[in-house]
Amino acid sequence: MKQDLDRLMAERNLDAIIVEGPDGFANANPDFTYMTNGVSLTGTVLKRRGEPAMIVYRAMERQQAAETGLTMVLYDRWNMREIRQASADNFSAMVEHRRRMLTDLGISGRVGLYGTVRAGPFFAIMVALAQQLPNFEIVAEFENDLFAAARLTKDATEIARLRDIGQKTCEVVQAVVDFIQSGHAHEGIVVDAAGTPLTIGRVRALIGRELAARSLSSPYGTIFAQGRDAGMPHAEGDDAAALQLGQAIVFDIFPRDQAGYFHDMTRTFSIGYAPPELQRTYDEVLGAFDYVISELEAGAPTKPYQDMVCQYFEARGHDTIGRTSPIEEGYIHGLGHGLGLEIHEDFGFPSGADRGDVIVPGAVFTVEPGLYYPSKGYGVRIEDTIYCTPTGEFESLTPFPRQLVIPIH
Amino acid sequence: MKQDLDRLMAERNLDAIIVEGPDGFANANPDFTYMTNGVSLTGTVLKRRGEPAMIVYRAMERQQAAETGLTMVLYDRWNMREIRQASADNFSAMVEHRRRMLTDLGISGRVGLYGTVRAGPFFAIMVALAQQLPNFEIVAEFENDLFAAARLTKDATEIARLRDIGQKTCEVVQAVVDFIQSGHAHEGIVVDAAGTPLTIGRVRALIGRELAARSLSSPYGTIFAQGRDAGMPHAEGDDAAALQLGQAIVFDIFPRDQAGYFHDMTRTFSIGYAPPELQRTYDEVLGAFDYVISELEAGAPTKPYQDMVCQYFEARGHDTIGRTSPIEEGYIHGLGHGLGLEIHEDFGFPSGADRGDVIVPGAVFTVEPGLYYPSKGYGVRIEDTIYCTPTGEFESLTPFPRQLVIPIH
Repeated sequence: MKQDLDRLMAERNLDAIIVEGPDGFANANPDFTYMTNGVSLTGTVLKRRGEPAMIVYRAMERQQAAETGLTMVLYDRWNMREIRQASADNFSAMVEHRRRMLTDLGISGRVGLYGTVRAGPFFAIMVALAQQLPNFEIVAEFENDLFAAARLTKDATEIARLRDIGQKTCEVVQAVVDFIQSGHAHEGIVVDAAGTPLTIGRVRALIGRELAARSLSSPYGTIFAQGRDAGMPHAEGDDAAALQLGQAIVFDIFPRDQAGYFHDMTRTFSIGYAPPELQRTYDEVLGAFDYVISELEAGAPTKPYQDMVCQYFEARGHDTIGRTSPIEEGYIHGLGHGLGLEIHEDFGFPSGADRGDVIVPGAVFTVEPGLYYPSKGYGVRIEDTIYCTPTGEFESLTPFPRQLVIPIH
Repeated sequence: MKQDLDRLMAERNLDAIIVEGPDGFANANPDFTYMTNGVSLTGTVLKRRGEPAMIVYRAMERQQAAETGLTMVLYDRWNMREIRQASADNFSAMVEHRRRMLTDLGISGRVGLYGTVRAGPFFAIMVALAQQLPNFEIVAEFENDLFAAARLTKDATEIARLRDIGQKTCEVVQAVVDFIQSGHAHEGIVVDAAGTPLTIGRVRALIGRELAARSLSSPYGTIFAQGRDAGMPHAEGDDAAALQLGQAIVFDIFPRDQAGYFHDMTRTFSIGYAPPELQRTYDEVLGAFDYVISELEAGAPTKPYQDMVCQYFEARGHDTIGRTSPIEEGYIHGLGHGLGLEIHEDFGFPSGADRGDVIVPGAVFTVEPGLYYPSKGYGVRIEDTIYCTPTGEFESLTPFPRQLVIPIH
């Protein structure tokens, strides 16, 4: 949680942090968004250990800067026009502006770097600054960094948001089921009253409207993948295709709310009926899902859950990433991932090297076993977003039934 | 244009480029999106001068990698699991994987860095790589970089997209005007047939639905700012506020299509009537807009247009950023900016140091003069997206009237 930042900085021996918030990344800068309390603006957050965080903002965004609740520092406190006139070029001016800013605000010692940036300019500026500042050691954390640790546990405000977006996401999925059931079967596909096929494109348009009506967006799209596409975890689905009876449909939806928080859920459907092989595979995936949920325990390391699912599937004749890598069919990915201000946060259930991730109270993560057989024309995944409460219980934030077949007239 | 990349690399003496495409930035990584031809995936694009670009992709995203049309290189060609087992930690493994990849694919010499990254991990990896690779000079361009230069001029496919999204954006603005006109005036505000106020929140919900119906999104929101908020260029507007008569409303909308291209337009409205001071200010902004449009010339440097607008406004008694900086009231920003895969591309009409930007055939940019008086409770901005055709003519991609007053019953 945010209140842990000073303690976590002390653990990492960080004297200060810089969280970059350059223009154009408002929706893709979770650490910056975390610090600005969800307010979108261009700027830089600076914080010395034990002191309040500061936002360096432009005059044009005074109002947004005030909304962050952070200590406000105007960018032009170091007059950029004057600095430019005294500099050889814009690059030198940018470095000089930043040098003055860091010096005057006391950002020195061991300094952690965070935020989303443009690779080239950021690299150039930091290399130049490191040369010019006497007491400035860049600490570039690689994984399980300060923000991953802070953001891993959600506070009550965040949980309220995550619960709300989960509820709304389920409403959107229900609207899709209702839409499918508003059609009827005709020669192996679903058509509307006028006889026009219900296509994946029409479903996707409906999803867009239903999300918008709930002030949700889908910045990374939505997976609605049928048949062979359902066998490829990242295939989005073919908008031109009509909905077919008896085909696996993997419907994976991961919308974002206006403050930047995500939900992530997957249901696998088969319209009208399910062929026996698909039903059997579905039952195995659901079995794995239920097994994991029943075994979840606060304080437990994550890796054994991934191993457990691999063994579960291997015992049923499936290849898994636990014994084969790279792998293209069978159980081919990790069991889940942390989520919050990112769909994929820095927490997982690894098959490879164990980083020591542990399920701590306050964590929010997905559980999403799946089996993929593109060569056989199907795939199955079932996914809920799960919350480990402060008292160590587990709550699904995805209140939606897990049922394969959508009956249809 | 993309076909210029090799020439531009030669001009910059670049032997190769690396375009980073880490997870989670699909919508905020324009250079990577440019190289993948709009396909969303996680990976790295590598290109040696004079050779085709390569995409290093994960097995799970084979299909997306194929859709890019680039030369495909599987990430696990350098088996990550084996590298991990032989490495001290995940960080060393990542560096080693990348060292092998760059060595085997011949990415050496003067190498340009592009793409959107996480500040800390990227810095750590590049510093480590620079130490380990013998012939690897990082070239971190600061501005007017390779991609800014390539992307500045749009090809026919891009223009077709930009024209289409401009048309659709105007339809959404028209839908908002229609919605306002569906209400009627009552005690200084706009209400619907049931007497319920039309609020900015209701307008925003309508915008969301109308955008979704056209497969557009608004990842950076929409400005619908009334009264004092209209005087602050980046204020989004207060959802709880009812639409008032005779108040400036700055409506600035900048949606994105599914391939990642943007449109950007602003209209300033006043419902029912306009107070004389607002009308006079509006006429001055429109005068500046028309003046600039009439003077646009292919091959001309941009800075004189900004100077021209400052002089135009100063002659009419307004303070401007041309003579005062920082500035909070009057004409307080640049005249416009390039746009395409970003709302703000690296091309502008500067008030400060002149970088030498020139209006070249193929460029797409905004023209958006404005006057801001939050202390007097209003602001005005008028903005079209403009295309400089290959033959040096100018076309507005924003076919929407520029009229202040929205008549209402």
